[in-house]
Amino acid sequence: MINASMSPKAAREYIRTNAPLATTSGLCPGFAQANLMIMEEQYAHAFLKFCVANPKACPILHVSEPGDPFPTELGEHIDVRTDVPGYRVYRHGALDTEVLDISALWQDNFVSFYIGCSFSFEESLVQHGVGVRHIEAGTNVPMYRTNIPLKSVAPFHGELVVSMRAMRSSDAIKAVQITTNMSKVHGSPVHIGAPEHIGITNFAQPEFGDPPIVQDTDITSFWACGVTSQLAAMNAKLPIAITHSPGKMLITDRQNWELEYS
Amino acid sequence: MINASMSPKAAREYIRTNAPLATTSGLCPGFAQANLMIMEEQYAHAFLKFCVANPKACPILHVSEPGDPFPTELGEHIDVRTDVPGYRVYRHGALDTEVLDISALWQDNFVSFYIGCSFSFEESLVQHGVGVRHIEAGTNVPMYRTNIPLKSVAPFHGELVVSMRAMRSSDAIKAVQITTNMSKVHGSPVHIGAPEHIGITNFAQPEFGDPPIVQDTDITSFWACGVTSQLAAMNAKLPIAITHSPGKMLITDRQNWELEYS
Repeated sequence: MINASMSPKAAREYIRTNAPLATTSGLCPGFAQANLMIMEEQYAHAFLKFCVANPKACPILHVSEPGDPFPTELGEHIDVRTDVPGYRVYRHGALDTEVLDISALWQDNFVSFYIGCSFSFEESLVQHGVGVRHIEAGTNVPMYRTNIPLKSVAPFHGELVVSMRAMRSSDAIKAVQITTNMSKVHGSPVHIGAPEHIGITNFAQPEFGDPPIVQDTDITSFWACGVTSQLAAMNAKLPIAITHSPGKMLITDRQNWELEYS
Repeated sequence: MINASMSPKAAREYIRTNAPLATTSGLCPGFAQANLMIMEEQYAHAFLKFCVANPKACPILHVSEPGDPFPTELGEHIDVRTDVPGYRVYRHGALDTEVLDISALWQDNFVSFYIGCSFSFEESLVQHGVGVRHIEAGTNVPMYRTNIPLKSVAPFHGELVVSMRAMRSSDAIKAVQITTNMSKVHGSPVHIGAPEHIGITNFAQPEFGDPPIVQDTDITSFWACGVTSQLAAMNAKLPIAITHSPGKMLITDRQNWELEYS
């Protein structure tokens, strides 16, 4: 059985059995979780340049050697082929299938990118008394496509995807202060205030995650989101790209404080 | 004639004539200067991974396409082959020659890396009233090899090189606060206090730059230094690598404030 306070290694061993798990949110508090992006070696340099050029959306925690499924820098005995609770396989820019294990799909030329995740800064917000509506309600964070252009590095291009957190105005100021020094997990917000100013036309219906919860005197704050890299990789129409499924992240042995002030 | 307050474009046009210039330090205040590292395409992905893994030493401002000498992202009409006041050419890990212009050496497979420079944060320290001894004396910053290991990404490896700034203890605290949010120009210090704790055995004789100036009640603060990438590239024994000569940086059109809080 899984329980929230088990060690990252024990959680990964549970996940490796392909037991069902809706989300890694809330598991192993204090430890960082990572977004995953896997692609063939010939696209890896361009993708890394794309990430460096768009650091708020794609903060790099680690890049593997070609064919290496064991990111020891991120934790003990991690096998990226089995230790994520769900994977999405994209072919030529379209979702092909969703699987629990990618051992059978693994290629010797696969490069894995591990990208920081907002779960780390959400934990810090809560620890500092910032009330975030979707966390209070236990729902997924709402995510939206915007009209904010990314810096293109061919074949990767597109617009920024953001996650939205509604909170009191005083907490929004505090959230800027807290996340400013967490650049490896998306850093400070990219926008505060009117969603329509960044091209969000249907605020009530986010493209990803759950509908927003906003109280009367709340202000909305928007952070760059790891989903950005998935859309940019889809736009690139790679022959094959594999990501984690939404909300089903890789749980690492790195502690959240290691990703602050870095 | 060159004067300190000319525009970056005018300064580059002067430099392009191969007129002698001892250093770009102090030129074009307000504008960022960049470290330069040029290498053949087949090593570029490993070097970019190395930079991402060692972000304090090698904060990336821009990576070129292979063969592209025009980093328009950094400024108008920049030609990296002519617009740096001096270049060092390394072959198989050893300094081969020092030249004023690399047009004749240019290869279609050269990738140029533009790396943040501490001149940007020194300007901010001065603007905030922090008294830095080598700046007050008009000498070069002292730089030291340390025993702090870098994260290796084959063939790039080595130890961190640091620059040292001596100042009052109260200013050292302020300097941490100021540089923390300048991660694109080396960020916060890596060490404060005793030089011998990071493997500096002969403090009076730095490996690079001028001898240190320290007043009785000063404390020494150490920042990751762009020279680190040059030594790591020498350790890699690349067939050819080209860097700027010490103190002779590329002057960009990017303003220093663009590199803060990023």
